[in-house]
Amino acid sequence: MSDFSKIAVIGGGSWATAIVKMLSENLENIGWYMRSIYAVEHIKRNKHNPNYLSSAELHPEQLDLSGDINHIVRNYDILIFAIPSAFLNTELEKLTESLDNKIIFSAIKGIVPESGLIVGEHFHQHYKISFENIGVIAGPCHAEEVAMERLSYLTIACQDEQKAKELSKYIKSRYIKTKVSDDIFGTEYAAMLKNIYAIAAGIAHGLGYGDNFQSVLMSNAIREMKRYIKKVHRMKRNINDSVYLGDLLVTGYSIFSRNRTFGNMIGKGYTVKSAMLEMNMVAEGYYATKSAYNINKENGAKTPIIDAVYAILYGKKEAKDVFEKLTNMLD
Amino acid sequence: MSDFSKIAVIGGGSWATAIVKMLSENLENIGWYMRSIYAVEHIKRNKHNPNYLSSAELHPEQLDLSGDINHIVRNYDILIFAIPSAFLNTELEKLTESLDNKIIFSAIKGIVPESGLIVGEHFHQHYKISFENIGVIAGPCHAEEVAMERLSYLTIACQDEQKAKELSKYIKSRYIKTKVSDDIFGTEYAAMLKNIYAIAAGIAHGLGYGDNFQSVLMSNAIREMKRYIKKVHRMKRNINDSVYLGDLLVTGYSIFSRNRTFGNMIGKGYTVKSAMLEMNMVAEGYYATKSAYNINKENGAKTPIIDAVYAILYGKKEAKDVFEKLTNMLD
Repeated sequence: MSDFSKIAVIGGGSWATAIVKMLSENLENIGWYMRSIYAVEHIKRNKHNPNYLSSAELHPEQLDLSGDINHIVRNYDILIFAIPSAFLNTELEKLTESLDNKIIFSAIKGIVPESGLIVGEHFHQHYKISFENIGVIAGPCHAEEVAMERLSYLTIACQDEQKAKELSKYIKSRYIKTKVSDDIFGTEYAAMLKNIYAIAAGIAHGLGYGDNFQSVLMSNAIREMKRYIKKVHRMKRNINDSVYLGDLLVTGYSIFSRNRTFGNMIGKGYTVKSAMLEMNMVAEGYYATKSAYNINKENGAKTPIIDAVYAILYGKKEAKDVFEKLTNMLD
Repeated sequence: MSDFSKIAVIGGGSWATAIVKMLSENLENIGWYMRSIYAVEHIKRNKHNPNYLSSAELHPEQLDLSGDINHIVRNYDILIFAIPSAFLNTELEKLTESLDNKIIFSAIKGIVPESGLIVGEHFHQHYKISFENIGVIAGPCHAEEVAMERLSYLTIACQDEQKAKELSKYIKSRYIKTKVSDDIFGTEYAAMLKNIYAIAAGIAHGLGYGDNFQSVLMSNAIREMKRYIKKVHRMKRNINDSVYLGDLLVTGYSIFSRNRTFGNMIGKGYTVKSAMLEMNMVAEGYYATKSAYNINKENGAKTPIIDAVYAILYGKKEAKDVFEKLTNMLD
């Protein structure tokens, strides 16, 4: 029997830090693994993450901070993964401890590049975690606003809804409201797809399209997302719930989104490679585009926006030409 | 038999000017009534509207400009009304010419204050225009971007879809795409309701809520809009089409929206009266809130956002308290 008060966060970035902050409102002890020993020591001394979300005050006396992932996995029942999907595999390879009987919540928004799978499916296929022990933490939420304690709504999903409810008790607080869902596939795919649509919004902006077009793009994107997810996992869901539409909007309208910034550079004429070099990082949506495109090849949902972004990022097509064709497929 | 090439625009504001510009791409002669004789003369001489959308170049040789509404109504079959709903009645009172056999398209986003009706219903009830001769021009469209010839998508609605198709031929151009719909009620109510949600977005911003909350608010707003319109006029429609969702987004995310600005002032502590004085105008959404609230009293759709805005604007309730309660009704 899992003890839901034994929660650990895996990851040292902004979103991991935000989740630790949320849990700190409710738990006396939280496990927290991060790769950087330097950051661990800094947090213990200075009560702030030196690299990410530095404005959030942390409480080291409540934190079991460690640079050893096996120490954390050994001692906690509920593991919240919040590292960029591109680094997940590297971290998991360090594991000597077993993940059997652990409950895994993914707060990762993206595709595991090595397997081309969303995180929940990756854990299921490669670590034999049953789906009832896999959950998702999603929602329209910039970590920066959690640091500022601005009201935010998260959705906690698990096919075993009781587990989602249990975790949600420790997540919600004065500034965090939670909703429970049993749609782990829809919530994870939505979180991944929205990054592609944010790239599309960036490309459009870079090409000189305005707010009128942006609103048409987002309105087409949510319909496309609905068709896409329906093919992946058919169930009753309202695509206009905050975890789907809200998440699309908070990213697609954010001028701080790295995916949107990446797209904007492409729209302005940068090559994919030079945009990545300039940003000194790879936007999540870049990988997501390839995976989403490939997954949909079999599913056959009508996805003109994903297809357009794919043609630009991977097909070496001119953004201007691709978007001119795209505008005729939107309405 | 109406001649669809005999089109006139009634109104001298930004949206009227934008529509004239669109029509100018396709028509040799366009009737255009505006109240201000000074503006008429200015446009004839200087090819720009002096007061609104001044950046748009106009072509006086294509325009039958007149300060006499009866001259225009007499000579044109298709009348596009594009004046603020608050002034519609004053203009209609000047009519000595009959509206019989005219086809009326409303490009007005709002409620006629004197009747509490959307424009189409107002013409139907007070001028005995049959619904098949009433249409709506709607869509996510800032007039300013039409002036800049940025790609925009409009929806032309009429229960007699053939008429919508006919008009759309003269509206679409290099930078305007059109879609035809038979949902005159849904498109008009959506255009009216979105102003209320823009006020709500402004209030939230004024109170200090952030982007995370804004996305939740918009995601709840579109679900509320769906419930509301379904009660008013039940038919098959996809609320995520651009004319509904896109229109909500282009307004709700616009920092230039007068409704959002009005809400922002209320959220920051201005009284309704002082906000209006400060803005030197009344935001359309102010009237819309009262009408929408009253119409819904009978219909009984669940509308927590409209109710909240109503309580603040008309019930003298504190915005802070009302929104704290509202946050518990959203998800």
